[in-house]
Amino acid sequence: MVSNVTISIAKRKQDERERLIKQMEDELGLASEHPEDQVYVTTCLEQIVKNLKEKRNGWSAERVMIAFTNCLTEILFEDALKRAKELDKQYATTGMAEGDFWGLPSSFKDTYNILGVDSSLGCSPHCFNPTTAAEEEATMVKLYRRAGGIPFCKTNVPQTLLAFECRNPVFLTTTNPHSSERTCGGSSGGEAALIALNGSPFGWGSDIGGSLRIPAHYSGICGLKPVRGRWPVSGQRNSVQGFDGIKGMVGPMGRTVDDLIFASRGILNLAHTSAEIGFRGEMIVPLPWKETEIPSKLRVGYWTQDNLIKTSPACVRAVEESVQKLRDAGHEVVEFHPPDISEALKIFVGLTSAEGYKSLLGNIGPDPMESSMRLVTLGSKLPAWLHSLLGWVVDNLLKDHLFASIFATSRPKSVEEFWQFTARRDIYANAFRKLVWEDLKFDMLLCPVQAVPALKHGTTKLLSPVSVSTILFNVVDSTVGVIPVTRVNQALDTHPADYLNDSEGSWLLEKRVYDKDGAYDAEKMHGLPVGVQIVGREWQEEKVLGMMKILEGLGGYQA
Amino acid sequence: MVSNVTISIAKRKQDERERLIKQMEDELGLASEHPEDQVYVTTCLEQIVKNLKEKRNGWSAERVMIAFTNCLTEILFEDALKRAKELDKQYATTGMAEGDFWGLPSSFKDTYNILGVDSSLGCSPHCFNPTTAAEEEATMVKLYRRAGGIPFCKTNVPQTLLAFECRNPVFLTTTNPHSSERTCGGSSGGEAALIALNGSPFGWGSDIGGSLRIPAHYSGICGLKPVRGRWPVSGQRNSVQGFDGIKGMVGPMGRTVDDLIFASRGILNLAHTSAEIGFRGEMIVPLPWKETEIPSKLRVGYWTQDNLIKTSPACVRAVEESVQKLRDAGHEVVEFHPPDISEALKIFVGLTSAEGYKSLLGNIGPDPMESSMRLVTLGSKLPAWLHSLLGWVVDNLLKDHLFASIFATSRPKSVEEFWQFTARRDIYANAFRKLVWEDLKFDMLLCPVQAVPALKHGTTKLLSPVSVSTILFNVVDSTVGVIPVTRVNQALDTHPADYLNDSEGSWLLEKRVYDKDGAYDAEKMHGLPVGVQIVGREWQEEKVLGMMKILEGLGGYQA
Repeated sequence: MVSNVTISIAKRKQDERERLIKQMEDELGLASEHPEDQVYVTTCLEQIVKNLKEKRNGWSAERVMIAFTNCLTEILFEDALKRAKELDKQYATTGMAEGDFWGLPSSFKDTYNILGVDSSLGCSPHCFNPTTAAEEEATMVKLYRRAGGIPFCKTNVPQTLLAFECRNPVFLTTTNPHSSERTCGGSSGGEAALIALNGSPFGWGSDIGGSLRIPAHYSGICGLKPVRGRWPVSGQRNSVQGFDGIKGMVGPMGRTVDDLIFASRGILNLAHTSAEIGFRGEMIVPLPWKETEIPSKLRVGYWTQDNLIKTSPACVRAVEESVQKLRDAGHEVVEFHPPDISEALKIFVGLTSAEGYKSLLGNIGPDPMESSMRLVTLGSKLPAWLHSLLGWVVDNLLKDHLFASIFATSRPKSVEEFWQFTARRDIYANAFRKLVWEDLKFDMLLCPVQAVPALKHGTTKLLSPVSVSTILFNVVDSTVGVIPVTRVNQALDTHPADYLNDSEGSWLLEKRVYDKDGAYDAEKMHGLPVGVQIVGREWQEEKVLGMMKILEGLGGYQA
Repeated sequence: MVSNVTISIAKRKQDERERLIKQMEDELGLASEHPEDQVYVTTCLEQIVKNLKEKRNGWSAERVMIAFTNCLTEILFEDALKRAKELDKQYATTGMAEGDFWGLPSSFKDTYNILGVDSSLGCSPHCFNPTTAAEEEATMVKLYRRAGGIPFCKTNVPQTLLAFECRNPVFLTTTNPHSSERTCGGSSGGEAALIALNGSPFGWGSDIGGSLRIPAHYSGICGLKPVRGRWPVSGQRNSVQGFDGIKGMVGPMGRTVDDLIFASRGILNLAHTSAEIGFRGEMIVPLPWKETEIPSKLRVGYWTQDNLIKTSPACVRAVEESVQKLRDAGHEVVEFHPPDISEALKIFVGLTSAEGYKSLLGNIGPDPMESSMRLVTLGSKLPAWLHSLLGWVVDNLLKDHLFASIFATSRPKSVEEFWQFTARRDIYANAFRKLVWEDLKFDMLLCPVQAVPALKHGTTKLLSPVSVSTILFNVVDSTVGVIPVTRVNQALDTHPADYLNDSEGSWLLEKRVYDKDGAYDAEKMHGLPVGVQIVGREWQEEKVLGMMKILEGLGGYQA
């Protein structure tokens, strides 16, 4: 039963959104009436700003903003359009068009506080409680405005953010841009879908377990998760206060690596020169953007299996084709078996579940809990005896020792146990970083984003551990990019009936993926984008972007 | 009753130390037989290395090492002397004397793992359990060796480190170099005492609540607490695993600011060029040493009172004389009232006490608990009802609301509460940093290190909250230096009988300090050194050192 409060608030938010879209359509006409918009919505960022500053025929901040608002389902565009007109007018009278992002529209994930609108995280208790003070705006939004950019919408997220299915009781479901029966991923799902549809030239997401990378992979766009401290996260609405066992980070999402470079360079340069904006006291490392030469022969370590859930043929092929292309281009690419990746998941679950998700679930209020959060929060909601019993059954009767060992970590803990998990995190992360960067001296790690391409709505509820491959790099705290490299091809990517024969993963999870009617089906997934993770050392955002660009340049994916 | 196990292990450790000292004396003769040592032990670091490399008459690595071992009470000097001879020989045959620290002896706090010796933290359960693998050595020790330096001893600490009285049941008491009835502070107390006595040219301490700054203040030397991530802390023995609510940091301690600069520059340059040593996976920010110009007119904010325990006349005078000197030198110095400093102490106590000091006290085993840990751990050991009752009595009957509010935070917590304290820390720290660096744009904050100069042995047991002034900057995570600026002068620093009349601090604590027979007594303290804290923004270690040097250059303290 959904409570009347949820129904009433959700209806008001949806009506508000519809009214604002309608109003804009009345003023500007429907998207279908403007076929020429296609030019504006598909131009790369650097070129948009260049065209604006050079006053190329037909280009103005207002015209670009109109082109994007026509594709949208969110609610800042009256202000955005007003700002665009102001910029155009100012330019016409003063000839001044200052800032790296001058006139450029950008979308922001719902977590970024923006003056005058909600950051509800899809939870009715947070609706109609807009950011009212300018200083409460996300620092990234302030920096973006300062560089001449125009935030024009906020985008949808999963309920409370801790899921990778972009659905909540307030704004409902955001679908995958390539298939309406599939999710666009999460938590930065709305961003990814909108950008893939050319509904925004680029945007800003965030990532604490893959929240930026999974949607990029599912929707066929690029994204970068930098390391905490490189640029500011202050002014984000979180679903949990005071948890820093795993450090979340904000980052850019876009259609091309060049767009990510343009966005990152602009923000990093500005962040360190614009003292009047400041960081709200946040500790930001004094490392402005630095042009970085990429070694002509990269040393790359790759893997295709996380050994928890067998990677699907499509996602294996994405890595293996990338390996081949890099080798053909003269790079040194070696297979590498990383330390037990499931340990990273156990640490992540052990830390995030430590207070029983009380704070997280406190956001929901009267709203019904989404199914995508079911498995995640199950372990913490059971009485201790039932938790032990269930774990025992999985371990001893069902004989899924791996799943049982992960489930065992998902429970409320004492502070003493929480610190033990913190220590375990440090041991794992330090050993991993030492091994790959210091001992093996890799420039890049290359691996799947996830075992599978975009899943169907409603199927993530018992498959949340599939995010192990992205969670790994939140535990280890690396700089990671995602780019799409291929699409599912039913002729190449269908899995044989005995696909799991040699697997040592969790059979309970793998069964749900590869059985008849399982989550993976190359035929039904035909055409879905498939990405890879490109991982670099902490603080080396420029180098990771450069390496992403190299792999992107070797081709393979058509948007 | 001290257990027989403790007595037996402590005796073996003390015998071992005595035997090694005796052995060295037999070989080299007593210190008193070498008056010429005075030259070696009082020369500044840069000059020592210069003299060695230039083969100045009478200078060799061996000779310098002998001069220092003669002053010592620790146990690495056989190896150190051997290494010094090797270096001399190598130089004689190859002419090669490489590394910023070539031939330079250095002491290390007991927490630094060094091959072949214990890191016992003064706890018998950790004795006779030496570091056996070279890769387990503290990264700082490895870097120091790599630069030609020679670790020659480890120095004493308080039991489990969480105290500022340098005493434990294994190595017993280290006394203040200026007064045997007083403590040298802690936890880097052995370092400070040894350096002040010219027993080591310089050394390495660590600081999670003032552990490097309090001993520097008590013993009249200089110290720098950098920000975590600037140089490596890996390979330290901690007394608690997995606690990162407050970030501890290692730093140099020395007789002059120039020596700290020499040490910091050497380590920072080497850390980023010596890839073969690496950081054991630790995340170090890529910021090598950078020569930094100090603004000719500094903007300084100062305060003299933390408003918890009234600062003594001597420590107020230390700040006020520094203010006057800086003003006379043309700097802009304004009084500044920082946000509630007691809140920082509540956060610190709230976080560190969260699991009831179980891990911390787990180090002690059969050893008797030192009195200096009594108040610190009291709150966590009481049953909840007694804790509440005691708090109520302090609050309502004794009417010390401030002390009661601090005591209330010292108790075991749920993970939910622990996260609330983490959130409280972030709110306080961000607001503080925003205010002082972004809004008020200070270059430097100047304040007391502590309300009082060096305390008597045994008196810290009920005065642990006096460390509030150093704890503040662990909560806020700033770069902080300490330099001695004056000495207690009974003629100037005696407090009047009505000294507490206008105070709004904790009267229970203040009474213990200023009553007849209280902890502060200018007459008995006459001649004790008094330091100040010089605080800068995070990541600005070079600038903080530069500002310390400016104040040091304005005179006031004679070693």
